[in-house]
Amino acid sequence: MYYIGVDLGGTNIAAGLFNESGQFIDKNSIPTQSRREAAEILKDLAFLCKGIIEKNKLDLKEVDSIGIGSPGFCDSDNTVVVYSNNLNFHNVNIKEHINRYIDLPVFLDNDANCAAYGENLYGACAGAQHSITVTLGTGIGGGIISNGKIVRGKSGSGGEIGHTTLVFGGEMCTCGRSGCWEAYASATALIRDIKIAAIKNPTSMTYKEIDNDFNKVDAKFAFDMAEMGDPIAQKIVDDYIVYVSEGLANIINIFDPEIVAIGGGVANRGEKIMAPIRELTAKNCFGGILSTKVVTAKLGNDAGIIGAAFLSKL
Amino acid sequence: MYYIGVDLGGTNIAAGLFNESGQFIDKNSIPTQSRREAAEILKDLAFLCKGIIEKNKLDLKEVDSIGIGSPGFCDSDNTVVVYSNNLNFHNVNIKEHINRYIDLPVFLDNDANCAAYGENLYGACAGAQHSITVTLGTGIGGGIISNGKIVRGKSGSGGEIGHTTLVFGGEMCTCGRSGCWEAYASATALIRDIKIAAIKNPTSMTYKEIDNDFNKVDAKFAFDMAEMGDPIAQKIVDDYIVYVSEGLANIINIFDPEIVAIGGGVANRGEKIMAPIRELTAKNCFGGILSTKVVTAKLGNDAGIIGAAFLSKL
Repeated sequence: MYYIGVDLGGTNIAAGLFNESGQFIDKNSIPTQSRREAAEILKDLAFLCKGIIEKNKLDLKEVDSIGIGSPGFCDSDNTVVVYSNNLNFHNVNIKEHINRYIDLPVFLDNDANCAAYGENLYGACAGAQHSITVTLGTGIGGGIISNGKIVRGKSGSGGEIGHTTLVFGGEMCTCGRSGCWEAYASATALIRDIKIAAIKNPTSMTYKEIDNDFNKVDAKFAFDMAEMGDPIAQKIVDDYIVYVSEGLANIINIFDPEIVAIGGGVANRGEKIMAPIRELTAKNCFGGILSTKVVTAKLGNDAGIIGAAFLSKL
Repeated sequence: MYYIGVDLGGTNIAAGLFNESGQFIDKNSIPTQSRREAAEILKDLAFLCKGIIEKNKLDLKEVDSIGIGSPGFCDSDNTVVVYSNNLNFHNVNIKEHINRYIDLPVFLDNDANCAAYGENLYGACAGAQHSITVTLGTGIGGGIISNGKIVRGKSGSGGEIGHTTLVFGGEMCTCGRSGCWEAYASATALIRDIKIAAIKNPTSMTYKEIDNDFNKVDAKFAFDMAEMGDPIAQKIVDDYIVYVSEGLANIINIFDPEIVAIGGGVANRGEKIMAPIRELTAKNCFGGILSTKVVTAKLGNDAGIIGAAFLSKL
């Protein structure tokens, strides 16, 4: 049996064909052109899948299902994207649209949950009954597997671990609340904090390196300046690691998972960042012992497609 | 078929007999005398269960199992109490001990999880696939049901929602960390805060009412003083409600449960406390809409026995 997984992104629609053991057999992608109507986008998506099936000379009977990872808020039980800002979808029944063109079972979940499930099946968390994948990017993306199931909650909005208060009365978050973990441990927060530190310290190496071109400041820049020896940048990176670790200890205390996988650019800085995160997380875990593995996510952007492909197995 | 549930407490061992539909048929309890060896305590527990079975003229074949709710850290898979401070148990295999005296399947989970499961089966959260029971007492006890299963995690220490940082760098918690939800939203925290407020305001009604007898200060006292019109106490109660609500919004954002049930003395103050908690929790939920019901727990101290009785059904 074969499985198709689709990452329905704001920029591209990427589809992958997998065999029973999770091996990539083929993949293809097309631009989303996300300003179009849902019907047009999903017609393209269906034909993308059809094309892969035909190219690989498969009979429909050999394909188990099409699984879709979508941004936004998804009602998996009814295969409905309730709302997606990136796609301008409102209550779109994905299955209905796709079944107009291709007669296969269709499964749906949001992209963060698919990525977590992918890592749980074939990535950094393979084999775990309880695992969490945290992506530290523009925001904090979270997907939780507990007792072998995705924690979707009653209406699919479970897993919003980034939107939990860490610093009571702290920085405003994009969600409208203040002090969320995301407002301190996302790459966006790191970028904000290094910019502020530079402005406050106009004689610092970091300020000079920025040279008034604040567009060049990204998370990598912050880490690079710390590594180049600017104590101002080092302080910001140290604080950032504390914030990341505090939030990790929180979710570990709640879920007691076997593994937490961290994705996004931050984790890719390697052990220089991961080692202190692990140490501080351990210090803050209940009992002070970190029996949960904290590792770097393995599958990168493919995690979502792989997870989506095997949604039928849940 | 009949079910036996046991609440193995530090003070008493309480056992209940239930029929298939969760109705209490009989109950009995004995003092734990917790300074004794595990073997002695569990022998008494086994005979307590045996007594109930014999009194109700049941054949062993008519009894499904004995389920035990224990304080401390439990390895449910192996029916081992790994560690319990209240009982002085270390790696005690509950099943082995009980099976010396009575040949029935034995199930184990910690008391907070059993209470949450009890509320989920026959209490305030009946019928929910996703529910959380929070007990605001000396600490914050939490039990989580997600996808119909208890969130135990890999080693049974899941559900420690009280030990998640809410106030970064804040008050010390009993767990050794600072700023935990428990350090702000437990009854203990409320008592600490009303005492401090009184000391800081020696002309206040609250300070006068205490009259240097700080032993009389409990959570009820704080609520009573606020209701009697002391602005000092009202401020403390208002702040307390904010802390409770912030933490509730955090767990709702993570789990998207159908229902959160609140137990302990605080919830029993009724709508005067519950209504503002609901309002503030809504404000802090992702999207600002509270689609999760926030209610008072129903089963009180019986929740744990009922949940324990039906552990075999998980």
